[in-house]
Amino acid sequence: MRKGIFKKTVWGFHLDFYQHVNNARYLEFFEEARWEFMRPLMESNILQENGWYTIVVHIEVSYKAQLGLGDAIEIQTSIPTVGRKSLTFHQQIFKSDKKLAAEAFVKFVIFDSKSQKSLFINEEIMNMFGLNEL
Amino acid sequence: MRKGIFKKTVWGFHLDFYQHVNNARYLEFFEEARWEFMRPLMESNILQENGWYTIVVHIEVSYKAQLGLGDAIEIQTSIPTVGRKSLTFHQQIFKSDKKLAAEAFVKFVIFDSKSQKSLFINEEIMNMFGLNEL
Amino acid sequence: MRKGIFKKTVWGFHLDFYQHVNNARYLEFFEEARWEFMRPLMESNILQENGWYTIVVHIEVSYKAQLGLGDAIEIQTSIPTVGRKSLTFHQQIFKSDKKLAAEAFVKFVIFDSKSQKSLFINEEIMNMFGLNEL
Amino acid sequence: MRKGIFKKTVWGFHLDFYQHVNNARYLEFFEEARWEFMRPLMESNILQENGWYTIVVHIEVSYKAQLGLGDAIEIQTSIPTVGRKSLTFHQQIFKSDKKLAAEAFVKFVIFDSKSQKSLFINEEIMNMFGLNEL
Repeated sequence: MRKGIFKKTVWGFHLDFYQHVNNARYLEFFEEARWEFMRPLMESNILQENGWYTIVVHIEVSYKAQLGLGDAIEIQTSIPTVGRKSLTFHQQIFKSDKKLAAEAFVKFVIFDSKSQKSLFINEEIMNMFGLNEL
Repeated sequence: MRKGIFKKTVWGFHLDFYQHVNNARYLEFFEEARWEFMRPLMESNILQENGWYTIVVHIEVSYKAQLGLGDAIEIQTSIPTVGRKSLTFHQQIFKSDKKLAAEAFVKFVIFDSKSQKSLFINEEIMNMFGLNEL
Repeated sequence: MRKGIFKKTVWGFHLDFYQHVNNARYLEFFEEARWEFMRPLMESNILQENGWYTIVVHIEVSYKAQLGLGDAIEIQTSIPTVGRKSLTFHQQIFKSDKKLAAEAFVKFVIFDSKSQKSLFINEEIMNMFGLNEL
Repeated sequence: MRKGIFKKTVWGFHLDFYQHVNNARYLEFFEEARWEFMRPLMESNILQENGWYTIVVHIEVSYKAQLGLGDAIEIQTSIPTVGRKSLTFHQQIFKSDKKLAAEAFVKFVIFDSKSQKSLFINEEIMNMFGLNEL
């Protein structure tokens, strides 16, 4: 299964009053990693040409360890779960000591602006997200 | 049960590429509403004096309807669920037509910096969050 | 001259590593206050109907005093400066003790998507922004 | 003069209603690049050990060209201006076609929490920021 790796460093403006990365900020880390995972798709322009766009319908995040100033993090992203009309990202943030800092499941649909409906997840869609790679 | 109401308008800088409020931005809306809910507690300085702070351990968000430019939203916040060592916020964002736009469950613990442990949720803690009000 | 007043409270997620509101976050406070100032204009739909949109071309911010947890702030917004093809917001953030926390000048143009040019600031534009009110 | 280079890609969550990177978001791009520029200093822990921290006192940003989805940007950072008690970053964002997208001047002081005063910029401070490198 294809896995995306995105690395980042935690800086002072990522931290909040409690000197740790704020829970909402993690969502931006996860989001940046998802866009990087989808980079080939975004560069292909397929979504725009078809009038399709992704809509997040459900997010679940478990916070396991706190992140502080200077932490080098690695965000791993994959799409292990394929539903009839949805795909679900699995994402994990690891610290440099391999400790899991946070884990997310992000379920999304692909919305077709012409029919105003979500698409069924067929072979074409799975190829778009690189899900048929070994 | 005590319920907090926080109102806000969606503006252009809240929207993303898809012209809708981005999923990460909702987390900031929910967070601002939680701080407003906790306003009496924050103004009392109890947490700081005891060396306690809140840590979010789990977040679940369901996105039900999209929010766009100029939408007047109302965020309702309560704490219906009390565990042995955790509290869980229930939050809902409603549009002006009363349609539910998003729903969140945010579980948190109260961390004691002296013992480096999470506190048990006793009467004192429940009073702090106004959970014994009728 | 028309002056907009927008009030807000500083919460924990607005603060950074240094326990003060981060310089980039002020820009969001200023931006939210500008949208509130332009609320009548945004509700009228004039910009969208004409294919016009505002583009910020220059920002200058002076930070005068730090903002911390629980600070009740008031953001004052006006447009004292009108150029040939630009308008400049003047914005000030005051703390509850009337102390000036930050001051900004935000220069913007109104871009016409049809001609792909910035508009000259005529009477119609000035009326749009309420600049002819006494 | 030492120059820091930081690269980034613009994704959908960086854009706003107008499909361009929002003016406040640029400040976060600039801020991330400044922290990367100061990485050796942050890793040395000198600031924390001395009870010193940096405070931004003035920011000026000129927006020259708009940034959109997928743009690969390069942020150049240097400190060309040294005052008696302040340092000023010069930062430029370039698009992949070498076009200048935005330019910032960010003036800051180093605040000493013991004396509650800003430090004079002496040789030690200049070395800390790598300003005596050829």
